[in-house]
Amino acid sequence: MNHPIPALAQIRRPIPDECLQALAERFGERFSTAMAVREHHGRDESPFPATPPDAVVFAGSAAEVAEVVGLCATHKVPLIPYGVGSSLEGHLLAVQGGISIDVSGMNQILSVNAEDLTATVQAGVTRKQLNEALRDTGLFFPIDPGADASIGGMAATRASGTNAVRYGTMRENVLGLSVVTADGTVLRTGTRAKKSSAGYDLTRLMVGSEGTLGVITEVTVRLYPQPEAISAAVVSFPTIRGAIDAVVQTIQLGVPIARSEFLDARAIGALNAYSKLTLKEQPTLFFEFHGTEAGVREQVEMVQEIARDHGGNDFEWATRPEERTRLWTARHNAYFACLQMRPGSRAISTDACVPISRLTECLEGAGEILARSTTPTAIVGHVGDGNFHCIILLDPDNPDEVHASEALNDELVRLAIGLEGTCTGEHGIGLHKIGYLLDEAGEEAVAMMRRLKRALDPDNILNPGKIFSF
Amino acid sequence: MNHPIPALAQIRRPIPDECLQALAERFGERFSTAMAVREHHGRDESPFPATPPDAVVFAGSAAEVAEVVGLCATHKVPLIPYGVGSSLEGHLLAVQGGISIDVSGMNQILSVNAEDLTATVQAGVTRKQLNEALRDTGLFFPIDPGADASIGGMAATRASGTNAVRYGTMRENVLGLSVVTADGTVLRTGTRAKKSSAGYDLTRLMVGSEGTLGVITEVTVRLYPQPEAISAAVVSFPTIRGAIDAVVQTIQLGVPIARSEFLDARAIGALNAYSKLTLKEQPTLFFEFHGTEAGVREQVEMVQEIARDHGGNDFEWATRPEERTRLWTARHNAYFACLQMRPGSRAISTDACVPISRLTECLEGAGEILARSTTPTAIVGHVGDGNFHCIILLDPDNPDEVHASEALNDELVRLAIGLEGTCTGEHGIGLHKIGYLLDEAGEEAVAMMRRLKRALDPDNILNPGKIFSF
Repeated sequence: MNHPIPALAQIRRPIPDECLQALAERFGERFSTAMAVREHHGRDESPFPATPPDAVVFAGSAAEVAEVVGLCATHKVPLIPYGVGSSLEGHLLAVQGGISIDVSGMNQILSVNAEDLTATVQAGVTRKQLNEALRDTGLFFPIDPGADASIGGMAATRASGTNAVRYGTMRENVLGLSVVTADGTVLRTGTRAKKSSAGYDLTRLMVGSEGTLGVITEVTVRLYPQPEAISAAVVSFPTIRGAIDAVVQTIQLGVPIARSEFLDARAIGALNAYSKLTLKEQPTLFFEFHGTEAGVREQVEMVQEIARDHGGNDFEWATRPEERTRLWTARHNAYFACLQMRPGSRAISTDACVPISRLTECLEGAGEILARSTTPTAIVGHVGDGNFHCIILLDPDNPDEVHASEALNDELVRLAIGLEGTCTGEHGIGLHKIGYLLDEAGEEAVAMMRRLKRALDPDNILNPGKIFSF
Repeated sequence: MNHPIPALAQIRRPIPDECLQALAERFGERFSTAMAVREHHGRDESPFPATPPDAVVFAGSAAEVAEVVGLCATHKVPLIPYGVGSSLEGHLLAVQGGISIDVSGMNQILSVNAEDLTATVQAGVTRKQLNEALRDTGLFFPIDPGADASIGGMAATRASGTNAVRYGTMRENVLGLSVVTADGTVLRTGTRAKKSSAGYDLTRLMVGSEGTLGVITEVTVRLYPQPEAISAAVVSFPTIRGAIDAVVQTIQLGVPIARSEFLDARAIGALNAYSKLTLKEQPTLFFEFHGTEAGVREQVEMVQEIARDHGGNDFEWATRPEERTRLWTARHNAYFACLQMRPGSRAISTDACVPISRLTECLEGAGEILARSTTPTAIVGHVGDGNFHCIILLDPDNPDEVHASEALNDELVRLAIGLEGTCTGEHGIGLHKIGYLLDEAGEEAVAMMRRLKRALDPDNILNPGKIFSF
C-alpha cells in the first residue's frame, strides 16, 4: 500500500450537541443516531471498514438539504451526501465524522420533456426508476453503472457504464443541476438549451466533484430515442489479445457500437455460476448494436468480420428482448457474481482507463499482474472506452490479503498511468485513490483543485477527506 | 442598452515601465508598442471600438507564455491571449490595458494519434490548418465556427458550429489541455484516456473560461473517421415555421444528421450576392448526412419525407465534393456576406440557443423583433442545436444605430432566456453579455464563478473585465 489514506483526513471532528439537537428537533423521525442506521450510511461496496457518521438525516427536498447544510455550516460540521450506497471507492465513509444526508427519499421524476429529449429528476431517483418511468415515451436514459445507482450519485462520481462507448458518460449527459453549496444556498447550473458558452461550466465542475463542492439535489439529463432495432451478441476468443484487438479495430473504424464489454474466462465462469448461463469459459465480448434495421445489419456484418479476423468464434445472438435483458443483467451483476468466487469475500475493483491504442498492452500487463494473486481475480470492462476493472477478492479482516490486493492495485494503477491513462475511468477518487490522483494529474493540477475546493468550501465541511486530504 | 459594460471594468491600469522594458529586452522584435500592432490586437469582429493593449508580445512556446505571465503577475499587469482575432463579443479588447499575448506563432501540430482518434496542437493552430494536416489520415476535426479560428481560442470560448448537432462542441471534443495559470505555472489537464473520474474536471473549467482563468497553450482534441459517404442538400420552405418544424422533428426522431443549418430569405439573398449562388430566396435549410452509403440513403429518405410534410420543396443535391465545399464555404461566409448587405457596416450577431421544443416560437419571435429594425438584418443558425444568430447591421459611429441594434439584441436575449435558453450558444460572454449572464445564470451562480476566478487569479490579471466586471 504505497498510498495509504493520509492520517489527517481521518481525524473525527467534534460535533456540537447543539447541532445534533437542532437536527433532531427539525427532522424528528427522519433524524437518526441509531448505530445500525449510522453503520449502514458509513460504508459502501468497497472493502473499507464501516466508518459511521454521527447521525443521519433523511432529506425530503432541496430546501431541507439546504437547511441541513446551513446548520452544518454554522457549526462547521462535515456532511456527506448518500444515495444508494453503491460507491466502490469509500466515498461515503465518515472519516471525519459528521452528518450523512440520505437523499434516497428525494425520488421524484420532476419532468420528462420528450420533445427536448431531457428529464429533470431529484437526486435520489435511480437509473432503473427513470427508465421504468420512460418506458412508454419511446425514450431512454443510457448511463448504466452496474449498480442501480442514484442519478445524483452518478453525477457526483462522473459515472458511466456499458453504453458510454456510444452515448457518453455523465459528463456528456448532464445538462444542468441544482446544488446546495457550502453556505446552504441552492443554485441551478446550466439551462435547458443543449449547449451554451455562458460563463464557467459549473455543471461540469459539479459532475465528478464527489460531494466535495456541493450537495446535488436535482439533475437534468439527456434522453435518447429508443433505437428502431437492437441486437446483441456474444463472441468468444482463444486469447485476450484477439478479443481486445477486435474491439480496438471496431472503434478505430468508427463503427457506432452501443456496447462492447469484455469478460475474461474467470469472469465468464463466475457469471455462468451466478446467473445460470452456459457461456464458453474463454475471453469473451458482449456486443450491442443500435440503429435502424439496416444500420444494425451493417454494423453486425462489419463487427463479425473484424472478430473473425482476430480468431473470434461465431456470434451467438440474443435477439429477443428477454434474452438481451438476461445477458445485460448478468453483465451488470458481474461484480456480485465475482464476489461469489469465494463467498464471504469483499473486492477491490480497479478502474484503469487508457487510450484505446494502449488497451491490449494494458490488459495483457494486467493479466500478468493478476497471475501473482493468491486470491481469486477476474477482469471485466467497458473496453470500447479503454476502461476495464480487475476484481480482486480479499478478506478485509486478513491484513495479508488486504496488503497483497492493494499491492496489485498499485501495480495496475501505475501501469495505466504509464500508458497515458487514468487511475479511474468511472468510479472516482474517493478515499482510495487520493495518492494516485497526485501521480496522475501532477502537483500543480491537484493544487488548482484544492484552491477551487477552498474557494467554494472554506471550512471543508463537504465530504472532507475525499479526493484529497485537506 | 440595458446592459452597458460596467465602467469599473474599463479603468486602464498603470503599467510599470519596468515591466515593459523587461518584456522588450526579453522578446526583442517579438515585442511591440507600435500603435498599428496594438490597435490590431485591441479589436475583434464585434462592433466595439478598438481598445488597444499597452504592448503586444508574440510568444513562441508555452515556456515563453509562462515567462510573460510571470512578469505580468509580478507587476499585476493585465494580459489577454490573442489567437486570430475572430471573437464576436469583445473578448480581445484591452479594457484595462496591459499586454496582449499573440499565440498565432504557436502553430505546431504536436502529434496526431490516428489509432486513438486524437491530436495535440499548440493553441495557435487553426481549425483549417489541422484539417489540412489530417487530410491523408482518413480523420477529421469537426468543430467549425464560421471563421478559421485558432483552436486555443475555440477552446476558450467553448465554440461549436455547423457540425455540433452530430459531433458536439469544444466541451465534448477537448480531451485535455495545457494552460499557464495566473502565477506563471504550466499545467496539464486530463489524460489521453477517453473518459476519467479523477478529480475536478479542470479541462471543462478551462474550456469556455475566455482567458480569465489561464492562458491555453496546447489542446488535445478528439478526431473522427471521415465518413464513408457524405451527402449534402439544400431545401427551401415557404415559411420559417415549416423549415424549423422540419428540423425539430428530425432531431426528435433521432436521425443522426451531421449538419442542419437554417438561413432566412435575406441571408440567402446575401449569400447569392456574395458567393455567386442562385438559391431561391426563401427560408432554407442546408443539410449534410454522414454515414455508410446505405445509412446516408436512409437518413436522406427520412429527412426528405419530413421536409415535404412541412411544405418543403425538393432537395437540391450537392453530391460532388467541390459542390459541397462551395455550399459550406458559402455558409461559413454568411457573416461576411451579410455585412455586404450594407457595405461599410459592422454587425451585432446575437447567439440565442433554446431547447429545441421552443425553437419555432423563438425564431418566429425573433422575426417579429427584427421586423422593427431600421438597418438590414438576417437570420442564420445551427438550428439542430436550437442555436441561431440574428445579424443586425449598424454603423458603429452612429449612436442611434448602436442604441437601436443593442435594444433589438436586448429583446432577443430576453426572449431566449424566457424560453429556458441561453444568451450565448457558442460565442461567449466577453464584454457584451456580462449583464445577461446575471439574468440567465442568477446571482448565486455568478457569485460562484467569481469565487472561482478570485481563487485562481487573485490579482485579476487574466483578461480582466470579461465574463464579469471584477
